[in-house]
Amino acid sequence: MSYGVVIKVLGNLLTVEALLMIPSLLVSLYYNQYDKTAFLSSIFITGIVGFVMSRKKGSRKTIKAKEGLAIVAFGWILVSFFGSLPFVLSGSIPSWVDSFFETVSGFTTTGSTIVDNVELLPMGILFWRSFTHWIGGMGILVFTIAILPTLGVGGFQIFKVESPGPMPDRIVPRVTDTAKILYITYFIMTLLEIILLLFGGMSLYDAAVHTFGTVGTGGFSTKVASVGHYDSSYIHIIIGIFMILSGVNFSLYYLLFQGKWKEVFKNEELRLYLGIILISVVLIGLNINSTMYKNIGLAFRDAFFQVGSIITTTGYATTNFDKWPTFSKSILFLLMFVGGCAGSTGGGLKNIRILVLFKLIRREISKILHPRAVIPIKTNGNAVSNETVAGITSFFALYIFIFVLGTVLISLEGMDLVSSSSAVASALGNIGPGFGLVGPSETFSSISSMGKLLLSLLMLLGRLELFTIIALVLPKTWRNEIF
Amino acid sequence: MSYGVVIKVLGNLLTVEALLMIPSLLVSLYYNQYDKTAFLSSIFITGIVGFVMSRKKGSRKTIKAKEGLAIVAFGWILVSFFGSLPFVLSGSIPSWVDSFFETVSGFTTTGSTIVDNVELLPMGILFWRSFTHWIGGMGILVFTIAILPTLGVGGFQIFKVESPGPMPDRIVPRVTDTAKILYITYFIMTLLEIILLLFGGMSLYDAAVHTFGTVGTGGFSTKVASVGHYDSSYIHIIIGIFMILSGVNFSLYYLLFQGKWKEVFKNEELRLYLGIILISVVLIGLNINSTMYKNIGLAFRDAFFQVGSIITTTGYATTNFDKWPTFSKSILFLLMFVGGCAGSTGGGLKNIRILVLFKLIRREISKILHPRAVIPIKTNGNAVSNETVAGITSFFALYIFIFVLGTVLISLEGMDLVSSSSAVASALGNIGPGFGLVGPSETFSSISSMGKLLLSLLMLLGRLELFTIIALVLPKTWRNEIF
Repeated sequence: MSYGVVIKVLGNLLTVEALLMIPSLLVSLYYNQYDKTAFLSSIFITGIVGFVMSRKKGSRKTIKAKEGLAIVAFGWILVSFFGSLPFVLSGSIPSWVDSFFETVSGFTTTGSTIVDNVELLPMGILFWRSFTHWIGGMGILVFTIAILPTLGVGGFQIFKVESPGPMPDRIVPRVTDTAKILYITYFIMTLLEIILLLFGGMSLYDAAVHTFGTVGTGGFSTKVASVGHYDSSYIHIIIGIFMILSGVNFSLYYLLFQGKWKEVFKNEELRLYLGIILISVVLIGLNINSTMYKNIGLAFRDAFFQVGSIITTTGYATTNFDKWPTFSKSILFLLMFVGGCAGSTGGGLKNIRILVLFKLIRREISKILHPRAVIPIKTNGNAVSNETVAGITSFFALYIFIFVLGTVLISLEGMDLVSSSSAVASALGNIGPGFGLVGPSETFSSISSMGKLLLSLLMLLGRLELFTIIALVLPKTWRNEIF
Repeated sequence: MSYGVVIKVLGNLLTVEALLMIPSLLVSLYYNQYDKTAFLSSIFITGIVGFVMSRKKGSRKTIKAKEGLAIVAFGWILVSFFGSLPFVLSGSIPSWVDSFFETVSGFTTTGSTIVDNVELLPMGILFWRSFTHWIGGMGILVFTIAILPTLGVGGFQIFKVESPGPMPDRIVPRVTDTAKILYITYFIMTLLEIILLLFGGMSLYDAAVHTFGTVGTGGFSTKVASVGHYDSSYIHIIIGIFMILSGVNFSLYYLLFQGKWKEVFKNEELRLYLGIILISVVLIGLNINSTMYKNIGLAFRDAFFQVGSIITTTGYATTNFDKWPTFSKSILFLLMFVGGCAGSTGGGLKNIRILVLFKLIRREISKILHPRAVIPIKTNGNAVSNETVAGITSFFALYIFIFVLGTVLISLEGMDLVSSSSAVASALGNIGPGFGLVGPSETFSSISSMGKLLLSLLMLLGRLELFTIIALVLPKTWRNEIF
């Protein structure tokens, strides 16, 4: 492990984070609230630490697998730590653990909150809280790669670790260009949603904050009732559509931009993703309409929003879906595991993995009858390598194991099984709300400090796709040999 | 598909089933209750149908993969259908669906019941109900292979499909001898437990019935309070130990018999299985002692019994564990998925699969740091083939998918999420009780007919390890080509 290069990159990262706090400072200056000094101090502290670290001379410039791993894992922990400074220093979230939980929840685009009455917090703080979603959604390291060309050398190691999905690949040959394309797409999408929400009568501030929560598939709102605060079908539908758009692989937008419509339309992951959404909306819409709503339009509007919110792992709510019948709730619980597409800002298992697992199962069934047949696994017409398949199946098993282990541990909090298991599924999938005591009309404030730290760890595990964090804590990573 | 040979073997199977009803007839004659005519008619009907089918002349004698599949899948459905005759004809369970549910639950060694007051049923019927556990535990087709040497040709195809675990193998070269060894071991174990329970003051009848439920890892009792009816630590501990012994791969007993102690002691699956039991008992024992029991001896006795009962997928209860704290319940829920060892009478995923999944995950973590390393997966020192690994990972994914889909479907019953999901996990893992409305002090009588048929299907899926039943319903199986 070359510590020099790791520290240097982490320094760059913190410097970038300090810069990213400036918009929030401007917001607090504009509204002239008590949080402005907190932002000034946070920017100063983060910037200084970042600057000092970035002066470290690395013995070499290239970044190998181990360094990439350490940079991403430590990067996310450091960024969450310094990102919580504004909450603590302004006194809006006095407890360190609570602030850390809230910041991790922000950057990982989970959106679980410990703030019981969010409407009491100052505007700058709420802006920062939602802005962390925007930064974390596409990845703060991808952002750093996009704006610091010096990271280009070996930047692919970092890009690979931070990007969600089993086979992250450059859209264009150079990784810095890939990072730029991703962020430009992201930026256009953000602008578009803000404008559309302004048309719906939202203030610029509310539009921006809810857009960050949408395109980052985060879910923090400035309203206690989340998006349900806005009594406007237009706003529900715009946010619903943008959630679903944000769960799509961003490289498909680049293909669209290049005019390759057919390729996008035939993309198997996209089809599965949209198919699951369609079926879920229909089933839930019919179920809640027949049992509670008695108004097919409203039932489908709310089913659409909640399905979009959960599958994309955003976590916004327009209604308390915890009160829905068990059939609808069990579908939503299932969607918590599905998640978005690879290369999107959504979390969860990702549709591509579900797709490959389906194909593996299909192959196994056909093998019962034709034991000697050799059937390759293909997606979009291309064979998936055995190594990628092994990676996907191990990921799935590990995801389920961590979910189960997390549930056993969090059940020491004394909540019921549904609350416990949905809290863990929600943290691991970077969703936000769960069911029962952590349902959409509740917060995580009543959970113990140990429980909050456990959930924070699960959020990081989920966002960085498990293996990164686990490899980091193995002593073997720090020796020259492993196993 | 050669229908001739399939029908012939199925005929043999039904003839064997008719013979296996004779002990129950003798019991009902001994107690001289109203169920004796029902047994006479059932034996007559089953025997006649079996005899007629077995006269069918097969065009060829060998059994290929497809025929093996059809024989096992149809065999289990037919045996369950004819096995429900005594319940219906005696009027003790008047509904066909209920009787089918109860019989499938018996043969698959699930032990879920729809009988609210089991103590009102006649002795012969209760004997048959528990005897189905004994027959299903080791496999009725394996039994048929053991006693009908003519099935030896191609019998391995049948043996492979009916035996639980990812890599069923002959203990000795000839499959008929393997089947005999398995049944002799099973028989000795059965006798031993009956004798030990007689020492504990049980009647011969009760001892036999509870032994069938134990060694078959079934769970039907003749008492409403299950094993908790007997206020004797001795009985709890004997049944607890025999449940755990029945969850062990039976081929290990043959190794013991051959004096290969070392090989048994080093068996990785056995170690994992015993390790999980030990850890679970300690965690649950401490948890229930500190929250409810305040008597460490009693707490550990009950923890031991319930852990043994759930992990081996037996389903007996000595206490209403649904009232235990969430921590203990979540561990039990987890154990519902683990199950016994391959080649045992237990259900669930089986420990060998969990072991291989752990090793896959470990390999994937090490690959992050050494992307080019080639690390084979080994169990007990032998490399596991890539095909077996693919079979295990697909099985795991399919198991989870079916669990999730089953939960969504059963949630239409309107039960809460915990009751719904545990009912499905319990049926799929062949356990018996779940939590909540299907907890250990409840029955399945309030579930609708559709729900009971769904759960029956899940029990068969679980017992025959998923792929068999699924392959059977694919139209492709019935054509010459698949995919």
